[in-house]
Amino acid sequence: MRSLLIVLAAIVATAAPPLSDTYKAAADRLIDAALADDGTYRKLTYLCDRIGNRLSGSKSLDQAIEWAAAEMKKDGLADVTTPAVTVPHWVRGEEHLTLLAPREMEMVVLGLGGSVGTPPEGITADVVPVASFAELDRLGAASVKGKIVLFNVPYAGYGATVRYRVDGASRAGSLGAVAALVRSVTPVSLQSAHTGQMIYSGDGPRIPAAAVTIEGATLIQRLSESGNTVRVRLQMGAHMLPDARSANVIGEIRGREKPEEVVVIGGHLDSWDVGQGAHDDGAGIVTVMQAAAIIQRLGLKPRRTLRVVLFTNEENGGAGALAYKAWAAGAVKNHIAAIEMDGGGEKPEGFGVASKLLPQATEIGRLLERIGAGSITPGGGGADIAPLMRDGVPGLSLRTLGTHYFDWHHTQSDTVDKVNPRDLQLNTAAMAVMAYILADMP
Amino acid sequence: MRSLLIVLAAIVATAAPPLSDTYKAAADRLIDAALADDGTYRKLTYLCDRIGNRLSGSKSLDQAIEWAAAEMKKDGLADVTTPAVTVPHWVRGEEHLTLLAPREMEMVVLGLGGSVGTPPEGITADVVPVASFAELDRLGAASVKGKIVLFNVPYAGYGATVRYRVDGASRAGSLGAVAALVRSVTPVSLQSAHTGQMIYSGDGPRIPAAAVTIEGATLIQRLSESGNTVRVRLQMGAHMLPDARSANVIGEIRGREKPEEVVVIGGHLDSWDVGQGAHDDGAGIVTVMQAAAIIQRLGLKPRRTLRVVLFTNEENGGAGALAYKAWAAGAVKNHIAAIEMDGGGEKPEGFGVASKLLPQATEIGRLLERIGAGSITPGGGGADIAPLMRDGVPGLSLRTLGTHYFDWHHTQSDTVDKVNPRDLQLNTAAMAVMAYILADMP
Repeated sequence: MRSLLIVLAAIVATAAPPLSDTYKAAADRLIDAALADDGTYRKLTYLCDRIGNRLSGSKSLDQAIEWAAAEMKKDGLADVTTPAVTVPHWVRGEEHLTLLAPREMEMVVLGLGGSVGTPPEGITADVVPVASFAELDRLGAASVKGKIVLFNVPYAGYGATVRYRVDGASRAGSLGAVAALVRSVTPVSLQSAHTGQMIYSGDGPRIPAAAVTIEGATLIQRLSESGNTVRVRLQMGAHMLPDARSANVIGEIRGREKPEEVVVIGGHLDSWDVGQGAHDDGAGIVTVMQAAAIIQRLGLKPRRTLRVVLFTNEENGGAGALAYKAWAAGAVKNHIAAIEMDGGGEKPEGFGVASKLLPQATEIGRLLERIGAGSITPGGGGADIAPLMRDGVPGLSLRTLGTHYFDWHHTQSDTVDKVNPRDLQLNTAAMAVMAYILADMP
Repeated sequence: MRSLLIVLAAIVATAAPPLSDTYKAAADRLIDAALADDGTYRKLTYLCDRIGNRLSGSKSLDQAIEWAAAEMKKDGLADVTTPAVTVPHWVRGEEHLTLLAPREMEMVVLGLGGSVGTPPEGITADVVPVASFAELDRLGAASVKGKIVLFNVPYAGYGATVRYRVDGASRAGSLGAVAALVRSVTPVSLQSAHTGQMIYSGDGPRIPAAAVTIEGATLIQRLSESGNTVRVRLQMGAHMLPDARSANVIGEIRGREKPEEVVVIGGHLDSWDVGQGAHDDGAGIVTVMQAAAIIQRLGLKPRRTLRVVLFTNEENGGAGALAYKAWAAGAVKNHIAAIEMDGGGEKPEGFGVASKLLPQATEIGRLLERIGAGSITPGGGGADIAPLMRDGVPGLSLRTLGTHYFDWHHTQSDTVDKVNPRDLQLNTAAMAVMAYILADMP
């Protein structure tokens, strides 16, 4: 009898229509609504143009939090709340990099997040360019002590190259260098300096670290190679202020059957202190906000709770991600999925998905093929949902083309004009469909 | 008898072997030598890295003149001379553009060459964006008086768009505007401000004019369109100093049979005061210098004189072009060709050629097909050889791909790293072959 029941249950399960049938009508409604809607772009424009960039601790981040919560309420989301999060407060201050020899020239410079500053008169020293950590170690303290190390490492993909930005100062400092310059982590440059977080590791001296442009790095390299002593003065006003009070922004569509089960969609509301944070991660923020707004507007009440979470402090600490997990506390185990969007707002291709949800996401992907966003690949995640994933929550990431993302990332050029309104509509459609079906599926 | 002679002469002329046969060996020697030579790139690197940008009136232009004359002598050119040229001396001074409303923000700005400055406290006014001169005229003085006009005109090719940079201030000023901002004339931007010459025409008021980036122009446009009054403060320290003494740099390979007949190859040694003037026109300068150096090194003495002319003050006056013509004076009529290179140092495609020399150039083009530079098209010229052409000298221009030329043109990003050493070798080969054969052909 028991084995017969199991067999019957298996037959019923097998016979259940695929998600791509069950949700065809709902998905089409969501897609049609998203493609006719300019709310995502309007939100992005307000966030970027009227509020601007928004580093942890800044007034503009406070404004963005207030604005986002108000927008969520206007869009009819429930239980909108802004639980407090304590965040680091790094301030850039004034910055100058002056080439002193073999000739005088001001160079483009952008301090790395988390760096200490220099004395007001700056640090003046000769520059030693290296192309890798291996070369740095070969040169050793004898060549590096008292010098400024330039990591002139050509871009070989973000993951492969960003370690020079993160660890360069500590590696150079441990050999006695007095400052570190890092070639901006980017494939292209129009005198574009890219900031981003650096991290002091170990007990070595904490030396100032700043990004130079590809133009600046290659100039120093050429001057050195042709036998010149290259001498520069680096001035950075960077400093830490006491920790600041920030907040995550949370709002939701309460589940109609299982409100305690949760699907999270989110991005990060903070940005670096340059440009507008339009792709990183304004696009993610407004996409998840508008996806929820459209689901709400169409009256599509999912079985489970669909929760929008705008994390604070992704760029230089990750305090928002940890704070959300602490806030959700015992309910984390009821999170059936968390979708992060933090790869910019170019055209969506599909989703990276944790193995546990791959079958369902693959079915849902079929419904996104009509907008070219149906590519479902294994492995999803992101910095803000990583703490949830470590507790077993299946993670997804909306994957966009990313053709130019790292050209703009962490620069003055990450601005609204780089975002195509149509691409934002497509992202909103993809996010709405994936989130709604995951929250509603039996 | 006379008609028989004419027929015989015609037969002899027809029977003369084509230039592409006669000069095959010489052309191959020149090409092989240029492709094995790093002198063009070495010269560019010195000019750009050690001397830097070089606006008329600057010390660096003086240094460049001295360096170029010394290099020509080292390369064995004859009669190296630097005849004096009086040039305008415009100085940029300090510049700031501050968005005041609807929120405060520093914007990227770069004054246009020739502009007047503002009072030290700047000019503070509301901004009226327009998309064309037609829109400006439709708005008229009623909407423009006392305002700052922003010409937010998307790039539609350099020739079509540059008129807003050149004439925008006068057109706006004549309607009572107090300053003009011009969207940078470029297809792409990473917060890239492009300078260039503006010209005050007519008797209208001379108002300050500055370039903003695509990012800045579109921000102002979006803010205006969403109903905000956009207010900015423009501060420019621009001013004219008394005319300065500059010079053209001239050197030559004396013709072995008809030294009084001259083929000129040239570019302009001055540049704007930002970046390194690597493509504009460092690449042209070093290409013509090295083409002559290689011809000289190979001992190829052409029948006619091959003259290298590095013109001063192309960017903001054209005094060098006029001065060369005055210097050549009665000998202009003996100039059988003038080849200008001022389109950047990307891969060469071929030459634009005045109709008079099209048959010969087409023959010579065949010899350049092996390096992909054999495309000969009607119509050559350039700003520096225009005065010669007006007196009947056939003009040619070396045509390069120009795929990215206007991305870099007149910006901080026109730097050596944008120049491919191999492309410089190809340009040098093309220039050497065309110049040598034109100077030597029967």
